[in-house]
Amino acid sequence: MTLPDPPYYAVVFGSQRSPADAPGYAAAADRMVELAAQQPGYLGAISSRGADGFGITVSYWASEADIARWRADAEHTLAREQGRAHWYTQYTLQVARVERAYDWAAPPAQPADGD
Amino acid sequence: MTLPDPPYYAVVFGSQRSPADAPGYAAAADRMVELAAQQPGYLGAISSRGADGFGITVSYWASEADIARWRADAEHTLAREQGRAHWYTQYTLQVARVERAYDWAAPPAQPADGD
Repeated sequence: MTLPDPPYYAVVFGSQRSPADAPGYAAAADRMVELAAQQPGYLGAISSRGADGFGITVSYWASEADIARWRADAEHTLAREQGRAHWYTQYTLQVARVERAYDWAAPPAQPADGD
Repeated sequence: MTLPDPPYYAVVFGSQRSPADAPGYAAAADRMVELAAQQPGYLGAISSRGADGFGITVSYWASEADIARWRADAEHTLAREQGRAHWYTQYTLQVARVERAYDWAAPPAQPADGD
């Protein structure tokens, strides 16, 4: 994922999975990633979920209008309703304007002299 | 965690753990949570890490000045240096202004009639 220089927008979604319907949830989550990536203004996303069932997904968008359009998407709306009915016990969501960004990666390992 | 009404600030930290030094990392991560919670302007945090070693922590702050002060904290700075030297293979960080926030929780289960 390569993000542009700020400003851009982030949607921070923190969710607690219920124990219910792991296959249905996994299929819908994969489909939402696929569908989000096709939306105008989608810049990328990061996601993790721990063994306790708590997960965070942060998706990045060019504008608030792009986020509103994705929120209104019919298939996304249906998935959100299924999420509340079956897959989540609670969630939090914030829409935020990214002001500054940094990234870091370890330098490639160098062979020692003589290797 | 109870957050105030927006605006407030979020620091989104996405990181890939190296396989190195699990006990040292865990101790430092616990200490940073404890130390962050003592900082002025700290509002709370959410965190998850998956089995692949990729994790996301989002911490919430009242102002950008509070984030800058926490970034400059000596013990935090040392932990960040250890993180780059030992614990992470890459990370991304964004500072973002939260414009809107929502949360949802499943209603408590109701006993069926006659139970």
